[in-house]
Amino acid sequence: MLVLITSLAFGQIGTKTTNMEPRFTVLTLGVDDIEKSFKFYHEGLGFASPGMIGKEYEHGEAAFFDLKHGMKLAIYSRANLAWDSKLKKTERSATEFSIGYMTRSKEEVDAIMELAKKAGATITKHAQTAFWGGYSGYFQDPDGHLWEILYNPQLLPED
Amino acid sequence: MLVLITSLAFGQIGTKTTNMEPRFTVLTLGVDDIEKSFKFYHEGLGFASPGMIGKEYEHGEAAFFDLKHGMKLAIYSRANLAWDSKLKKTERSATEFSIGYMTRSKEEVDAIMELAKKAGATITKHAQTAFWGGYSGYFQDPDGHLWEILYNPQLLPED
Repeated sequence: MLVLITSLAFGQIGTKTTNMEPRFTVLTLGVDDIEKSFKFYHEGLGFASPGMIGKEYEHGEAAFFDLKHGMKLAIYSRANLAWDSKLKKTERSATEFSIGYMTRSKEEVDAIMELAKKAGATITKHAQTAFWGGYSGYFQDPDGHLWEILYNPQLLPED
Repeated sequence: MLVLITSLAFGQIGTKTTNMEPRFTVLTLGVDDIEKSFKFYHEGLGFASPGMIGKEYEHGEAAFFDLKHGMKLAIYSRANLAWDSKLKKTERSATEFSIGYMTRSKEEVDAIMELAKKAGATITKHAQTAFWGGYSGYFQDPDGHLWEILYNPQLLPED
């Protein structure tokens, strides 16, 4: 039944069926201090980036970090994200989402939590055995955005 | 110089150098009504999922949608995300992040915005020419989470 409902939910534009592919390309984090955030991700966590771009536009300043499979992690000011999406900028809220980073071992969870701490992250939960049987810890980036570093033998990262 | 700083920033655990790989695996959205969110993503946008899981745990109820490259989009209650990360649950805030979905044409942007609207999304910005030269629109999911649907001839999605 769900299969039927799902197939009916695909949008129809003229005679062309449009549906979303199971993917996204960019995760953009709203930040308050883009230079500080850039330093955290680039120098602290080691994410490669061509650097800050878009300063020539009034609301364009951003940075993109290159991820696998053509994906990007982006940072953009909360004020500009509000402007661009036509929303009112609202207060920080760390419980809106979390970014899950899978590892291949418990030791790798510990090592990345340590790396993040050295980079200036706030550890909200030290790595420990999780209720679902794995091993995980949480940290916040300089803007409060949550990362969960986790080891789940049933869900290892793809190479 | 940045290259040098980046290489120095990689964590050292004993004699083993640990660094983060340029990736993440799961994007978890904090939600208020997980059944409503599941319906939006599964029936409305058409993301495949094995269904709700984790109900056997007090704080475990979640759903995962399968994305390309082994990635997952997850939904989990804000209250449980707060509990799991040892944070206080805070108010909704749509300017914390956005999820960018690249298309291969302007028409595809229009079609997906229409699909999202039919699924119950709130359109915050109708698709239009963007300041950076592309074409994009924004919508919010039932929990206010922002998606940007965008066409950028210089950054097409990978197949």
